[in-house]
Amino acid sequence: MQKMHPMSSRLLPVLLLLCCLASPAQTKSDPLPSWNDGAAKQAILNFVRVTTDASNPSFVPPEQRFACFDQDGTTWVEHPMYTQLVFAFQRIVDLAPQHPEWKTTEPFRTVLAGDKAAMEKFSNKDFEAILTATHTGMSVEAFTPIVNKWLANARDPRWKRPYTELVYQPMLEVMEYLRANGYRTYIVTGGGQDWVRTYAQQVYGIPPEQIIGSAYALEYQYDASGAGVLIRPPKMLLNDNFSGKPEDIYLFIGRHPEAAFGNSTGDQQMLEYTQAGSGATLEMIVLHDDAQREYAYGPAQGLPSTDVGTFTQALYDEGKTRGWFVISMKNDWKRIFAWER
Amino acid sequence: MQKMHPMSSRLLPVLLLLCCLASPAQTKSDPLPSWNDGAAKQAILNFVRVTTDASNPSFVPPEQRFACFDQDGTTWVEHPMYTQLVFAFQRIVDLAPQHPEWKTTEPFRTVLAGDKAAMEKFSNKDFEAILTATHTGMSVEAFTPIVNKWLANARDPRWKRPYTELVYQPMLEVMEYLRANGYRTYIVTGGGQDWVRTYAQQVYGIPPEQIIGSAYALEYQYDASGAGVLIRPPKMLLNDNFSGKPEDIYLFIGRHPEAAFGNSTGDQQMLEYTQAGSGATLEMIVLHDDAQREYAYGPAQGLPSTDVGTFTQALYDEGKTRGWFVISMKNDWKRIFAWER
Repeated sequence: MQKMHPMSSRLLPVLLLLCCLASPAQTKSDPLPSWNDGAAKQAILNFVRVTTDASNPSFVPPEQRFACFDQDGTTWVEHPMYTQLVFAFQRIVDLAPQHPEWKTTEPFRTVLAGDKAAMEKFSNKDFEAILTATHTGMSVEAFTPIVNKWLANARDPRWKRPYTELVYQPMLEVMEYLRANGYRTYIVTGGGQDWVRTYAQQVYGIPPEQIIGSAYALEYQYDASGAGVLIRPPKMLLNDNFSGKPEDIYLFIGRHPEAAFGNSTGDQQMLEYTQAGSGATLEMIVLHDDAQREYAYGPAQGLPSTDVGTFTQALYDEGKTRGWFVISMKNDWKRIFAWER
Repeated sequence: MQKMHPMSSRLLPVLLLLCCLASPAQTKSDPLPSWNDGAAKQAILNFVRVTTDASNPSFVPPEQRFACFDQDGTTWVEHPMYTQLVFAFQRIVDLAPQHPEWKTTEPFRTVLAGDKAAMEKFSNKDFEAILTATHTGMSVEAFTPIVNKWLANARDPRWKRPYTELVYQPMLEVMEYLRANGYRTYIVTGGGQDWVRTYAQQVYGIPPEQIIGSAYALEYQYDASGAGVLIRPPKMLLNDNFSGKPEDIYLFIGRHPEAAFGNSTGDQQMLEYTQAGSGATLEMIVLHDDAQREYAYGPAQGLPSTDVGTFTQALYDEGKTRGWFVISMKNDWKRIFAWER
């Protein structure tokens, strides 16, 4: 009996420590460890707190908890070029032997010549021609392995990493935090729905039915064996940019989301539409102001604007008037990528 | 002590009975009480058994469990006229004072004259004109209360009940049973997505984001106060009939469903596409062969076919070849409606 006393007293601090590590303390651990303390982080925590507390007037029933995320520039790197376009350009090169006419047809000729200066001046019509040539005319099943193979092998020129590793760790934490609190997370992208669906489960933990994006039409046809197959004809069905975002959100989920995250003028209408819902909502825009760790672009940096993918002064002003939160990558994010030292 | 013995022995059967009513026995209770024993019921039970048993080679992971239900004629009464059309015809009458030109314009003139013989000969173009006039040109928020008000007051001519009570109790049980086993249930209807969304949660327990249907385009506009609103212009986006069903299923969920329920040629491609998925699948078609309790129509009854909403001989033959299950309303269903005595 005597021997046990010293043992007990030595065990006591250990036991206390174990108690602290158990569930009550776990719920107090930081769900957003890659975020610096500040208005943006507090806005997220506060939004979840008030919308999930049944005694709060801003409580949202679990079945109505939807959060929408733009992708390019919001959840992963979009600079200097959308990853889907990098893929499409490479695909043009790969397909060229089957299309001898491309050698003399624009915009394919320019891509095959690797004329980067000319490619930077491509019009929307040029991009459309390239996307249509690389994304349509095949079954939906045939497309997925083409993308998967490319993603497995391609490396971005700056960090020499798979493009799927260029996701923003702080945004992954927000997604996970929202899901842990009953929110369903959706990608709502101007990029291709088919493209994002190939990797979204693995990269974001978001299943195919929660990917809204620009989409080609589908055509149900019968193959030689009489089996039904879905083919993508060269015809757009959904353009999920600007006004297309609230339109497609309604088509897919039938209501206003509670939270939306974007970074460009292409997301403005989605953010407005989110805020137009009843009750507490959350609207956030990512500002690319970290030239060191990622990129700095947009009007704050005096860089030129493009139609899509840019945080313009006008967007910033509208956001300020409406009470949207700006996420400064430089100031709000402790780290940008999971693999950062 | 002596007095307690007789009491205990009298209590014993009661206690045993209570034990039988507790949870282990509950899981053995019939999940499909409105179904007669037979091939159709066994097919459903067997499908759920093999796809939810992790040790079965046909096991389907929970995140891939999708079941699609046609609506008209599959989950509720479609005869003698789709309920959505009954609504649209009444809406034409209600809106007529604001459209004096309808008195002399077809097909509105015929509807306003109540000329049923002529209405039965309406072409698809006529129906389109009527649906467009009653379902578009307003915000998505404005449409819902119009439908709700009509549904609350309208009664069907045969049973004198709200149309939302003309749902098939056995199909509600299948939906509930599938959901209890991790399946997500979707409505995939040739009818309007907007229309079905107004009552699907209440009637089927299916939320707006799980309603796939024919859909008008949406247009994000700003109202006088500068707030964004979604308006439906008179332009179709999705025609969710025939080939449109697998096309829209892929658009919304991005994969083959595991189970599909239909009743007409308009569902054939959905059933084919479901079966074309890998692993165990379930395809069922409802045969309307109960003139007493509901209606008997289709080729088996020598009634004429229409484009949509008909169980044709060709569908029956294809189903037989492919191993689809026919649900005989007369033989497979103990009762058709929840309110049946």
